[in-house]
Amino acid sequence: MTNDISQGLSCPLPIDNYATVVLAHGGGGKLTHQLIEQVFKKHFSNPDLDLMHDGAMVEVNKGRIAISTDSYVVSPISFPGGNIGELAVNGTVNDIAMCGAQPKYLTASFILEEGLRIDELEIIVESMANAAKKAGVLIVTGDTKVVPRGKADKIFITTSGVGMIPEGRNIHPSKINAGDKIIISGTIGDHGMAVMSVREGLEFESEIRSDTCALNGLVEAMYHASSNINFLRDPTRGGVASTMNEIASSSNKGIRLFEQAIPVNGNVRSACEILGFDPLYVANEGKLIAIVSSVDAEKILAVMKQHPFGKDSSIIGEVTNEHPSVVVLQTVIGGERVVDMMSGEQLPRIC
Amino acid sequence: MTNDISQGLSCPLPIDNYATVVLAHGGGGKLTHQLIEQVFKKHFSNPDLDLMHDGAMVEVNKGRIAISTDSYVVSPISFPGGNIGELAVNGTVNDIAMCGAQPKYLTASFILEEGLRIDELEIIVESMANAAKKAGVLIVTGDTKVVPRGKADKIFITTSGVGMIPEGRNIHPSKINAGDKIIISGTIGDHGMAVMSVREGLEFESEIRSDTCALNGLVEAMYHASSNINFLRDPTRGGVASTMNEIASSSNKGIRLFEQAIPVNGNVRSACEILGFDPLYVANEGKLIAIVSSVDAEKILAVMKQHPFGKDSSIIGEVTNEHPSVVVLQTVIGGERVVDMMSGEQLPRIC
Repeated sequence: MTNDISQGLSCPLPIDNYATVVLAHGGGGKLTHQLIEQVFKKHFSNPDLDLMHDGAMVEVNKGRIAISTDSYVVSPISFPGGNIGELAVNGTVNDIAMCGAQPKYLTASFILEEGLRIDELEIIVESMANAAKKAGVLIVTGDTKVVPRGKADKIFITTSGVGMIPEGRNIHPSKINAGDKIIISGTIGDHGMAVMSVREGLEFESEIRSDTCALNGLVEAMYHASSNINFLRDPTRGGVASTMNEIASSSNKGIRLFEQAIPVNGNVRSACEILGFDPLYVANEGKLIAIVSSVDAEKILAVMKQHPFGKDSSIIGEVTNEHPSVVVLQTVIGGERVVDMMSGEQLPRIC
Repeated sequence: MTNDISQGLSCPLPIDNYATVVLAHGGGGKLTHQLIEQVFKKHFSNPDLDLMHDGAMVEVNKGRIAISTDSYVVSPISFPGGNIGELAVNGTVNDIAMCGAQPKYLTASFILEEGLRIDELEIIVESMANAAKKAGVLIVTGDTKVVPRGKADKIFITTSGVGMIPEGRNIHPSKINAGDKIIISGTIGDHGMAVMSVREGLEFESEIRSDTCALNGLVEAMYHASSNINFLRDPTRGGVASTMNEIASSSNKGIRLFEQAIPVNGNVRSACEILGFDPLYVANEGKLIAIVSSVDAEKILAVMKQHPFGKDSSIIGEVTNEHPSVVVLQTVIGGERVVDMMSGEQLPRIC
């Protein structure tokens, strides 16, 4: 490597001359720094990030914080309504918000496949910056690795987040009580079917768009109306059915859902019928399920409906002491069926 | 999917019957839950993680916290002295410690390639649990995605961490002053050459082992001796040379290194000679560089030498007002040369 040291004194190609990611972009040397400066810092710049230390150092108040992480491997990386970058920011913001916390700081770690076009990468990074701005969070530190062609699929992004939990908020399965109402913040299945429609080449009169968005603003509005919010969860992978099963299981309560009350967009319903999916199992990326005390359910529902990300909110069910750990759906035609957790892989690489 | 709901009532195969990871392990349904219960929770179990919410909720004191993230894509996933799991825990613990912080909470996000052997995965997860225990940190939340065969390479792990910065500690490039001493905590190049030796099939009388370890205990010992620690950094990707260049650049100071004082194991030196590497550019995973006020340098060095992870510590250089932003090496034979940042990709997928 001694030769490289003297070679290093002459400047390597500016990044503009690299149309695609090369292995050296992940080597920790000059090209890594150029990629960081000219793509990541260009869009993410803030004083914490710009310090470029191994970690970010930020202030917190005494109290509880929420910490979350998610990896994003969605394919294709762009789809109607969003791309993997927006998804990675919104998804982790939402996981923090589902703890009743106010998301503040995000980290972003990239695994890039050699050969990824730099202009494609920049579009994703720019989307992340915009999504972070909208959600009011800072991307304070990150990492970039590059693997050889065929050892990843374009780009994988892992985001982690930290948020502060204001006093008096307590999201915990033990707080869920019989009689509590179950509210969903809007239509289900939009994200999963937006991705599947692209993959399967389905076309509808009106395009199915992902619902990806940051839900922290909606959560704040809800807490402003009432602190009787006992549980929050965003029904992503596995959809509403899997999420409700997780909640039933962790709280050891029964869940009763009313099919008629569950909002589904017409074109999502059509796509589900064509492809043989049940919308209850399809992923959402901009919806939350709230389990709230019945006394405040209507009040909370009302503020949700006034929020741009909650206008189709609906009370879709209730908690019961009957059939503990089991989710039962009262169907449109009046029957009842058990809604089990998904047993297999319905939609691979949906997020 | 309606059919799958009734099928779901009969139990799918227990995980013991899956020898390898299948796509459904990442689907968010039953198999995901089985994988979490029987591999991840089995080894990582703690009250925060066991809650299995989207995020972990933990207590902090008022003050500064450090946040860090890193993705690990090392190939091969096991090497003498460690594996990708240990590396992922120690690496993020170290990034937090290099902020002068006490690492507390880790998140772990897995991208698994379909076909990865579950027993291989479990070995890695167990190593992570052991590394976390040794470092005194809790893995409080995580995520698992599965991508089809050929879309990843066995396993990628992204860890993020949060640590508390005790009052009075302040790691910042602006604190670096001319006259400060530069200390390294031991021999350089061990991790990189351990991985390269496996890849290249090199054999030595004594095996080259990765130095991966958690440095937070060493950092605490150093702060116990003196708070005159102005900067800390672990020289991972790009090695000591790239790290020193980053420090010179961010502090706008000159760095002078003494080649003779830089400890290198004999077999690492031999492997570097055979493969044409300069150990200054080879990655370390269990070493730190400290820039300390000269008045306390010997005191700090003494406690480092007493620590199991610092016994070969050495003062290897000093900060100067000459040649700002440039790193100069005083060679063994008495000459001087500029040590530049690595310009290309020396060792792909070393971490």
